[in-house]
Order: sequence, then C-alpha cells, then structure tokens
Amino acid sequence: MKAAQFLTIDGEFAMKRGSLTKPSIAFETWGKLNSQADNAVLIFTGLSPSAHAASSPEDPSAGWWEDMIGPAKPLDSDRYFIICVNSLGSCFGSSGPASVNPTTGAPYRLSFPVLTVEDIANIATHILDHLDIDQLHTVIGPSMGGMTALSFALNHANRCRRLLSISSAARALPHAIALRSLQREIIRRDPLWLEGNYDPAGHGPEMGMRLARKLGMISYRSGEEWAERFGRERAPDFTEADTPFGIDFEVESYLQTHADRFIGAFDANCYLYLSRAMDLFDGLDHGGSLSASFNDLRLESAMVIGVATDALFPLSQQQELAEALQEKIPEVVFSALDSIQGHDSFLVDMDRFRPAIAAYF
Amino acid sequence: MKAAQFLTIDGEFAMKRGSLTKPSIAFETWGKLNSQADNAVLIFTGLSPSAHAASSPEDPSAGWWEDMIGPAKPLDSDRYFIICVNSLGSCFGSSGPASVNPTTGAPYRLSFPVLTVEDIANIATHILDHLDIDQLHTVIGPSMGGMTALSFALNHANRCRRLLSISSAARALPHAIALRSLQREIIRRDPLWLEGNYDPAGHGPEMGMRLARKLGMISYRSGEEWAERFGRERAPDFTEADTPFGIDFEVESYLQTHADRFIGAFDANCYLYLSRAMDLFDGLDHGGSLSASFNDLRLESAMVIGVATDALFPLSQQQELAEALQEKIPEVVFSALDSIQGHDSFLVDMDRFRPAIAAYF
Repeated sequence: MKAAQFLTIDGEFAMKRGSLTKPSIAFETWGKLNSQADNAVLIFTGLSPSAHAASSPEDPSAGWWEDMIGPAKPLDSDRYFIICVNSLGSCFGSSGPASVNPTTGAPYRLSFPVLTVEDIANIATHILDHLDIDQLHTVIGPSMGGMTALSFALNHANRCRRLLSISSAARALPHAIALRSLQREIIRRDPLWLEGNYDPAGHGPEMGMRLARKLGMISYRSGEEWAERFGRERAPDFTEADTPFGIDFEVESYLQTHADRFIGAFDANCYLYLSRAMDLFDGLDHGGSLSASFNDLRLESAMVIGVATDALFPLSQQQELAEALQEKIPEVVFSALDSIQGHDSFLVDMDRFRPAIAAYF
Repeated sequence: MKAAQFLTIDGEFAMKRGSLTKPSIAFETWGKLNSQADNAVLIFTGLSPSAHAASSPEDPSAGWWEDMIGPAKPLDSDRYFIICVNSLGSCFGSSGPASVNPTTGAPYRLSFPVLTVEDIANIATHILDHLDIDQLHTVIGPSMGGMTALSFALNHANRCRRLLSISSAARALPHAIALRSLQREIIRRDPLWLEGNYDPAGHGPEMGMRLARKLGMISYRSGEEWAERFGRERAPDFTEADTPFGIDFEVESYLQTHADRFIGAFDANCYLYLSRAMDLFDGLDHGGSLSASFNDLRLESAMVIGVATDALFPLSQQQELAEALQEKIPEVVFSALDSIQGHDSFLVDMDRFRPAIAAYF
C-alpha cells in the first residue's frame, strides 16, 4: 500500500443503515487530471482486491489489473486520470469491521453498520470532491464493482458521463446468493470466528476462510476451463494410497494453493460484510423494474461486458442490464466474450478483455 | 426399511482395494420374476438414497422414485421384476463405514477399504445369484447409480442386455470433483468428525454435514429454477434487522430446511466414502478412451438421458457417453430434456422423465 492515498472524512458519514465517525478511504491514482478536469476514470473493485490495481513509480509491484492500466494500455494513464478505490468495509486501508472505531478505540468487528453497495459508492464522492473532480469521464467496475458503479451512476447521476459494467449484474439472483450465503456460514461456523470477536491481528477463522475461498474459486471459474486444464490429472503429491481423504486430483491441489494464498490476506469479518452487501444490492430499488429505476440515469454512454461461462453473474443477467440501459441511454455497447475462465475472465483472459475495453475508450 | 431384504455374503468379498468379511447388502424388490427369468431390472441409486425406491405392501411409505416404479408406471411392476440395491458403503442396511466389522466387533469407520464404484456394482452380482437371475433385462442408474450401472455393464457384460444411464457420466470431471472434494473437506474440518472416530449412533459432525448438504443442493439444482422459484423473495423469518448474518432470503431458508432434513439421516463417514468413489470412477479405465473401454460391452440397447441445466453432470458429458456407446451397441437412444431443475430433475421433473423412460421400456 505504498502508493495508497488516504482520505479521512470529517465528522459523520451517513450509511444506508447507520453511520461512521471519521471513516478513512484508501485509493490510488495513475496519470494526471487535465485542466478541464474531465478525464477522470473511477474504478470500483470486486469483493477482495485493494486499490492497487496497477504498478506505479511509488509502488512498482504488479496490481490486480496490471495489464489494463498504464501508458498505452486500454485504460491509458497518458490520457486519463485513473482512480481506484478500496471499498468501504474492506481491509486495505479503508474503514471496515477490522478497523479501530475512533470513538471506542476498539475494532468495529460486528458493531460496524450493515454495509451496502450504495455506501461504497456514496463515500467515493468524497474522493472526487477532494480531487476537485465534478464529473467523471467513466465509472468502471467488475463483479461487485459493477454493482457499485451502477449504484454510483444511479445515485450520483450528474457526476459521471459513462459507465463500464464488467461481469456484473443489476442485482444478485438466488444461485449467487446461495453460494455467498454458504461461504459466509462456513466462516461463521469456524469455532475460531468467535461470533466475530477474534483478534483482527491474529489468525482468526482461517479454516473457514480457506473453505470459503475454495467455494469462491469453484464459482469464479468454469467447468470447461478446468476440464481442459486439469482433466483427471492426479496431484504430484498423490496421497490416495496413504490417507483415506487427502488430495488425489490436480484440481484439489490447485484449490488448496489458491486458498492458502488468501489466508492472512483478508479479514474474515470484512469478507462477511462485503459478501452480504452484494446479496442486498438491488438495482431495482429505484423503481420496481430496471426500466423504472433507470429513469434517474444521466449517462451519455454505457458498456456492459461479460462472458458466457460466468456462473456467478450469468450472461443473461448482463444482457438484461444492457437492454434496460438501452431504453434510457443514447449509446450502449453489449459485449459477450467467448472466454472460458468464467467469472474471473476479466482478471485472466486479457487477450479478449483488453481489446474490448480499449475499443470502448 | 421394513421391506428391505438382506443378503450376507459368505466369506470374503474382494474389493478393488482390500476386502470385506461377510458384508451385507440391503435391497428391495417389486413385481415378480417370470419363468424365463428375463424380466429383471436392477436399479443402482445416487449417492444418498436407500433401496426403498417405491412403496410396497410391506412398506407403504413413499419411496425416492415413487412416481417411476409400480403397476402401470414407467418401470411397470406388472411386467418387470424390479430390484433396487442400497449401495455398498452406504448406511441403509448395506455394509459401510458405519457398520460393525464382524472380525473386530467395532464399527469400521476409516478402516473400511477405499470404496470404488466397481465394488458397488460387483457386489450386486451376489444378489442376482441369490435371486437366480442370470441376465438382467436392464440395469438402471441415475447420477452415481449411472456410473455404477455402466461399471456393471462393463465388468459383467453377459449379465445385462440393456443400460439406462440417467443424468450421469462415464467419469467425473474437475468441476464436479472440486465440489465433492470441498464437501468432504467441510465435513472433515468439523471438529466433531474426530478423524472419523465419532460415535455412529451419536450426532457426529452435524454442522459439517449440514454445510456439505447445502453445497450439494446448490450443485443439484439450477440457477434458472431458483430465479423463477425464489427470485429475491425475503424469508418469512426475515432477520436482517436483528442479526448481522442471519437468513435474509427465501433461498437461504430453503437450503436450511433441506440441510436440516439430511442431518441424522446419513452417516458422515459413509458420505465421505461414497462421494470419493464417484471421483475415483473412470469409465476409461478399461481402455484409455471411451471407445476402447466400451469394446467389452455386450449390450443390445442403451439409453442415455439427461438435462441441459445439469451443472454436476453436464449434458456434454452425457452426449459424449451416448456417442461412445453408439459406436458399439446396435441401439442407443440419447434424450436431452428441457428440465430446469438441474441434476435433480430425475427426482422432481416427473412430467418429462416419466414419458421418456416409459418410451424406452
């Protein structure tokens, strides 16, 4: 987080349900704001990334969207002033359940108010004010970030001209809710969760987090990709003969490696809050139908991009979003890519996503 | 299990890896064997059902395939002698990890040999011998039972004339393996699993079983069905305002109800053994390709039936199975149904499955 900047909001920040005293928000930027202040692009992230979307002179480590952001890249930092925000409720510099509540001196833990996607979107307006940006060129978000970007466009209609929704949806459907609800329950059932009262600086419910992450990986990728990639390959540390229930298959070893990497990198309570925020978000809250809700939009243009193998945010939902936007917005591009990596394609299938996003910019 | 019959095998039963002393197998039958003994139909079950596939005078309670089996039903007990077997390794009368090992007087638990689908198929031949059936009219299986039926047709080629594979596959692919592996790990991480040494008559790892069952339900049904059925309906005992992470949505309440029903009904170690058997099964073991493996088949006819919304046994795998069978067998029917209930369709979408199966018989 060497490159991260921090904005602390004076006084109370009103949330949809409750409020926070002097919350902080972490963000990073690339490129320069032009003199008309009309080249700013704001990126909201998926559930787990930090604001470090790309490397910079201050922090040369690769970011989570390294191939997308930088000079001569699709989000060209020679042309745009790019901002990425660590979501409210997360644990990479922004206030969340793992942060210390300044009024009590103790971590918020479950006393953090119910988090909604709207709160994550709303608090970003303080960053725009701080940076003297009246109106964004584009608001962007993949996955949960797409919900946040849509919420921003709905609730701050005059502060953005364009919307780029990536592998996201206007609201969660029950299959995705069921998966996330089960992930949360797996974490909560870990005896070391302690009803949320584990030490945020300690290990916490690591086993629950590991299992939840494995379920996440299963929902983020596609069966087609894994069939091609792993087939029925056995793991190198093939244990079948030794233990009755160890790791037999390469795919099990892969999940174990990914889950291990996640442990210690993300706070369990923050995960619970952000995960539930995705379930609660409903882009229809403004109207009762997408069409009615979208009456508030003032966008000039929008792009909805997704992939056919996405099991978490199915393409049908993204098409529905694009069609509802088309009723209200002069220009809407709907792009369905052939990526086989499922929901995670926007992070890994750069050969398809880069040109599609470059074309929109 | 009032209607169940039990066959205890004398001496040792050789398994693929290890052996059992005097194992028992539970089964039920409907209808009568004709004088030519050529009207017997054998059903292997999915992972969790018992042999009680349908009601009978001895046990009038509804079976798990009640609409499919009986007089004038698709599996017509006026015409066929129908047998359903409780899988070896299960806990409804057949020997499994929860059974007492006759040589030690204690439950097998993890000393039960590694279970394979081939073992489940092989032991059923003892039932045929016992019932004086040389050759089956048809061997049938849904889900894991389809793998077992295929194994039976491969390894006992002269003992069946026809095969009916329902929502199954010739081998597990990594997406399904990952889901089952995670279910098993969730159970094993329950502190009350005790490395398998919980008391089979006690509660055991109920929380792990509940969570694993929820994951099972998510993989057994389809997002399309749940979107239609639940949408974003809130649960009647809507707890959002009260607790930070309770049950908000109808789909969460549904999963909870189903998981509660499963608890106490299935032994955790048996579940682990059967689940892993599905992962280990590979219909290619006979050859290196399905086509080479299927050289051993002596079937007159086969039907492969499945549904497009099956996320666990994708239709593409069922089509692959049908095509490989078509190379070797005079008559192969491939039936892809439009059911939206996913893998579980064969249990619930009777309006589509009944006529399709009746047509084959």
